[in-house]
Amino acid sequence: MSSETSSTVDTGTAGEPGRIVISVDAMGGDRGAAAVVLGMADSLAQNPDLAFLVHGHETEIRPLLDKRPDLAARTTVVHCDAVVTMVDKPSHVLRHGQKTSMWSTIEAVRDGRAGAAVSCGNTGALMAVSMIRLRKLAGVNRPAIACLWPCRAAHGFAVMLDVGADVKADPQDLLQYALMGASYARNGLGLARPRVGLLNVGTEEHKGRPEIREAQDLIAAATEAGTFEYVGFVEGNDLPSGRVDVIVTDGFTGNIALKTGEGTAKQVGDFLKEAFNATFLSRIAAVLALNSLKRLQMRIDPRRVNGGVFLGLNGTVVKSHGSADATGVSAAIQLARRLVASGFTDRLSARLASVAPPGQDGAVVQGERTGSSS
Amino acid sequence: MSSETSSTVDTGTAGEPGRIVISVDAMGGDRGAAAVVLGMADSLAQNPDLAFLVHGHETEIRPLLDKRPDLAARTTVVHCDAVVTMVDKPSHVLRHGQKTSMWSTIEAVRDGRAGAAVSCGNTGALMAVSMIRLRKLAGVNRPAIACLWPCRAAHGFAVMLDVGADVKADPQDLLQYALMGASYARNGLGLARPRVGLLNVGTEEHKGRPEIREAQDLIAAATEAGTFEYVGFVEGNDLPSGRVDVIVTDGFTGNIALKTGEGTAKQVGDFLKEAFNATFLSRIAAVLALNSLKRLQMRIDPRRVNGGVFLGLNGTVVKSHGSADATGVSAAIQLARRLVASGFTDRLSARLASVAPPGQDGAVVQGERTGSSS
Repeated sequence: MSSETSSTVDTGTAGEPGRIVISVDAMGGDRGAAAVVLGMADSLAQNPDLAFLVHGHETEIRPLLDKRPDLAARTTVVHCDAVVTMVDKPSHVLRHGQKTSMWSTIEAVRDGRAGAAVSCGNTGALMAVSMIRLRKLAGVNRPAIACLWPCRAAHGFAVMLDVGADVKADPQDLLQYALMGASYARNGLGLARPRVGLLNVGTEEHKGRPEIREAQDLIAAATEAGTFEYVGFVEGNDLPSGRVDVIVTDGFTGNIALKTGEGTAKQVGDFLKEAFNATFLSRIAAVLALNSLKRLQMRIDPRRVNGGVFLGLNGTVVKSHGSADATGVSAAIQLARRLVASGFTDRLSARLASVAPPGQDGAVVQGERTGSSS
Repeated sequence: MSSETSSTVDTGTAGEPGRIVISVDAMGGDRGAAAVVLGMADSLAQNPDLAFLVHGHETEIRPLLDKRPDLAARTTVVHCDAVVTMVDKPSHVLRHGQKTSMWSTIEAVRDGRAGAAVSCGNTGALMAVSMIRLRKLAGVNRPAIACLWPCRAAHGFAVMLDVGADVKADPQDLLQYALMGASYARNGLGLARPRVGLLNVGTEEHKGRPEIREAQDLIAAATEAGTFEYVGFVEGNDLPSGRVDVIVTDGFTGNIALKTGEGTAKQVGDFLKEAFNATFLSRIAAVLALNSLKRLQMRIDPRRVNGGVFLGLNGTVVKSHGSADATGVSAAIQLARRLVASGFTDRLSARLASVAPPGQDGAVVQGERTGSSS
């Protein structure tokens, strides 16, 4: 089914030299195709080298493009009849989802028509389709979803993974997360030698679950081959501290930490609004402080860091928040663009091969790629 | 050793009728005995029925009390030579800690000289000493630490447990946490029928780890006997939402969620301060909004909710933050006082017995205590 969809595609001008093509799922987000197309327009305005394959109902997408000739000139519409909803189970989508816009979005990356995929749809289904169609990188057991977390460091963000691809992770998986997260931090944040920490309930050696203490030993032994620093155990309050660039944890804990942080930031922001509406004087103060408050909002705006990156696959997939508006979609597309421009997938693949355990993928010289920037 | 310490105690006026006696560890916190004694004075000023047993170096404590005759009149000093430090391992404290102020603090609850204990010291050691000296309540496998979480509900707080007593919890433990948390919410927050939720990575039935889905069935079946509502799975961003009063999770996940929330709130608060210092106008605005900002600070001040309560023991123990100042210590003491005044431990014990599995503690009629407020 998917090949049928693919074979009818006219990639148009998308594939011209110097262009970075992003495959975008127009459907499945809470705000529909309009928010997605607006996000595409915004990202193109900021990055003139972008081009798009956009997948979904052509009758919905075309009128939105007709209003934006600049965007239309860079976009090819791939019509798809079906849409994955937020309540569809991943297993159902794998069996029956070949005609969906999500499937078609991933297929374009698989075929090499696009450098990366972006979707606002159902996370579980997107990961399942990505795993089946793109396949895992050699040596990866569990792919992970990595997100960016606002922090005090000069570069502004830390990487946390896994934030929800899998509810379990054994010590070997956590080692792979460390390697993949460090590679993402190098290519996505431009850090030469990222500082990696393992999320735990205390920083002392004896704290936590046995599998985490075992993972600590594996990660500490891989710093040279992986070209990262290992800072040891970190706690929840270290996430925004700036003392760590890559936070490694299992997908259960990571997902709960991510949503707790988002929920808390939103709560404090709401309390702040209420405080400024409380009295006449505070309302005047809000007007005076408008620019400063806008800057604050920018710093804590979750839309700016929108985009969970799927790591460990043969291809880059960025999962945008289901509720993302145009600003959020634009951020996810620009993140995908940055990763394509840096040649991220190839570098990650090479990096993982360089630290593969003996016996896997033949003989491997540990540390031979240390000098590269993968 | 502990009995020697206890036998030399003059409980003085502490035990007079109508008084609520709190056993306070003056040592082991980051700010020393001065912050603890100030916190005692603050809590007494707000609650004239309080009296204290305070444990630690008499030469440090006595001069602090001499400056506060009102407090001194209500306080008996129990001299202890040794102090548990933050780096002492729990196993070491159990073997060699009998002369410490922490041990003596718990011993006073065990002997019935005080209604509850408060300590700013090493959490792991405090839980270990509490378990050994107070013993677990009948039917409790793993005691838990419960904390209060600021939320939008009218009563202002949700209870979350376990936030760090044990890194593991099986489905039966999670059921006990639900019962203990509901009992705490009734006695500590005054909620007749608390709404209980189970922390997970999604709200759909099929999400999460198998043991969590199993716990869901156990908790959903215990709502009548436990006198609570079960709202199903909740996510990290539901914590401050006000749609749940008791959040049940294992101590690993709970500890990371707690510290992530605290870290995020602090980060946003710091960003806010920076925003107000950014420009001349914003500094004027800060002056105008001073009262509103103070109210905001009150709402997100972690000191106001200071105090993790150990649940599942024969006696009430409140763990204050190690870094607590006088305001934080006072909050922890007042929480302990509220729980003593409500007869919390007896009610919790009866409640747990009422839903004990058949075969444990003899025959039990499910739901027989439904009408009580335990």
